[in-house]
Amino acid sequence: MDVLISEVGPRDGLQSIDATIPTAAKLAWIDGAVAAGITEIEVGSFVPARLLPQLADTAQVVEYAVRIPGLTVAALVPNARGAENALAAGAHKITLPLSCSESHSLANLRKTHAQVIDEARAIAAMIRALPADRRPHFEGSLSTAFGCTIEGEVPQARVVALAESLMEAGCDEVGLADTTGYADPVSVKSMIAALWSALGRPALTGIHLHNTRGLGLANALAAYEAGLTTFDSSLGGVGGCPFAPGASGNIVTEDLVFMFEAMGVATGIDLEKLFAVREQVAGALGDEPLYGFTPLAGLPRDFVPASPARTINEGVTA
Amino acid sequence: MDVLISEVGPRDGLQSIDATIPTAAKLAWIDGAVAAGITEIEVGSFVPARLLPQLADTAQVVEYAVRIPGLTVAALVPNARGAENALAAGAHKITLPLSCSESHSLANLRKTHAQVIDEARAIAAMIRALPADRRPHFEGSLSTAFGCTIEGEVPQARVVALAESLMEAGCDEVGLADTTGYADPVSVKSMIAALWSALGRPALTGIHLHNTRGLGLANALAAYEAGLTTFDSSLGGVGGCPFAPGASGNIVTEDLVFMFEAMGVATGIDLEKLFAVREQVAGALGDEPLYGFTPLAGLPRDFVPASPARTINEGVTA
Repeated sequence: MDVLISEVGPRDGLQSIDATIPTAAKLAWIDGAVAAGITEIEVGSFVPARLLPQLADTAQVVEYAVRIPGLTVAALVPNARGAENALAAGAHKITLPLSCSESHSLANLRKTHAQVIDEARAIAAMIRALPADRRPHFEGSLSTAFGCTIEGEVPQARVVALAESLMEAGCDEVGLADTTGYADPVSVKSMIAALWSALGRPALTGIHLHNTRGLGLANALAAYEAGLTTFDSSLGGVGGCPFAPGASGNIVTEDLVFMFEAMGVATGIDLEKLFAVREQVAGALGDEPLYGFTPLAGLPRDFVPASPARTINEGVTA
Repeated sequence: MDVLISEVGPRDGLQSIDATIPTAAKLAWIDGAVAAGITEIEVGSFVPARLLPQLADTAQVVEYAVRIPGLTVAALVPNARGAENALAAGAHKITLPLSCSESHSLANLRKTHAQVIDEARAIAAMIRALPADRRPHFEGSLSTAFGCTIEGEVPQARVVALAESLMEAGCDEVGLADTTGYADPVSVKSMIAALWSALGRPALTGIHLHNTRGLGLANALAAYEAGLTTFDSSLGGVGGCPFAPGASGNIVTEDLVFMFEAMGVATGIDLEKLFAVREQVAGALGDEPLYGFTPLAGLPRDFVPASPARTINEGVTA
């Protein structure tokens, strides 16, 4: 596997739509994704059920998913309280978002930057208190890193400073998130270079992109060319209605995987099986629109995915 | 202007949909596009009206458009007969498509490769017979260059050989066309390198991409990074319904221009004015779906287009 596709549909996707799908449908989605070759899924968010009823079953979903061999189970946590629940459920990876725009942070989490960093420090302490083999990977996500609908431009120096604070607070890694769809290929490359220069390459391996203005895959290509290896995306772009104000517009897993496989960059994911999961999820979501072009156009005639031999060998030796 | 956006909606877009819009609506589209800063438009195709009734008024549209100062008026021609009409109407640029897949060429134009090269030779002779100041730019377009729905893979060596034949036949330039949406960023860069190696850089400056599998802008980014400077696109992705078999799926002018401007690459195009043209064309097209995300999301807060100072200076010195 040359790149890691981290499926965020069950969290970021479902969080952004009104429909609530039954827990059984989420578990079936996760099973289908794993069968298609997905190895990391953000399955939910540990927020109060009154805020996001769609994700009220997150603990239950995490407890199911962590029993699937080979799957990294990720969960979002808004604060130390959420992290406590994520640790209890056994999540392998927890992500704390920090909005680089402080106005956005206050509007969405009602917290200043300093308060979010305090939460990060508390979470890191909680993790350190666990036995080494039960410690999850702890990521600080730099949301609105490329600009904010309230503040407009977010200076690169502020993003770098916040990333340093998150690492000092005890995060294992930071992640870049284009929450608002403001990123472009040049700003993506420039931001990666700035963060690597300040933090070293191991501190940043992944990016969370939105397709709000249609640049999602171009930005993913830029991030790949810059050297990132983990890409968040959402099956069918679930939650990605860019027509509604405030909608996130996740990049579409199917198109992202097709792009990489066509480029000869192995994702470990079987596209035809992924299309089948899309059909399954479409059924569970009812009228919710799905995005993406590859499933509708189908694979090119005589399409050869990236390095099938290598994927088979990995299976044999695993 | 760092890149040239060549608007192909009035030709490739309208050719791919059932609706026929009145000539006056086409002329208004062209006027609007020019007002937004578009400097090259493929306004039609010189094919028999019984084949493409949507484009039956191409001569009339060319004759109108060539009187607009600063606009390069391009037209597609399927053969020497079409070129004769294009020359009579005064087109500044004529494009002859050659399908790199011979099965596709036979199925669509009922011509072998050798027969299309003969047409190119005849067209080049016609052009040479004109006074020097009335000679249009003559491009041979390498369609299905990245693969074919009938033949599957099209070997790169065949594309290079056909490009050489087109240049030998008298084309001023060749263009790459991903007719089927089979291209990916790696194949785009590789094909450009192969063609430049065989023909020299001046022989290839532009690419015509489709968004059939969602990779349109990523492929455009790859082509830009490789060094191409001319990009075809269609306002609103007109003609680009990727849901229907055989539909082209042109990349969307609005999103393409936004990508470049956000990157600091000047297109000379005013995005807000372009959105206004979209509204105007949407009205003329009726129920035809439009694509693209940027017009729906709007520009980012505090968005700064590429080098406005330079654009103004160009205007001052022009």
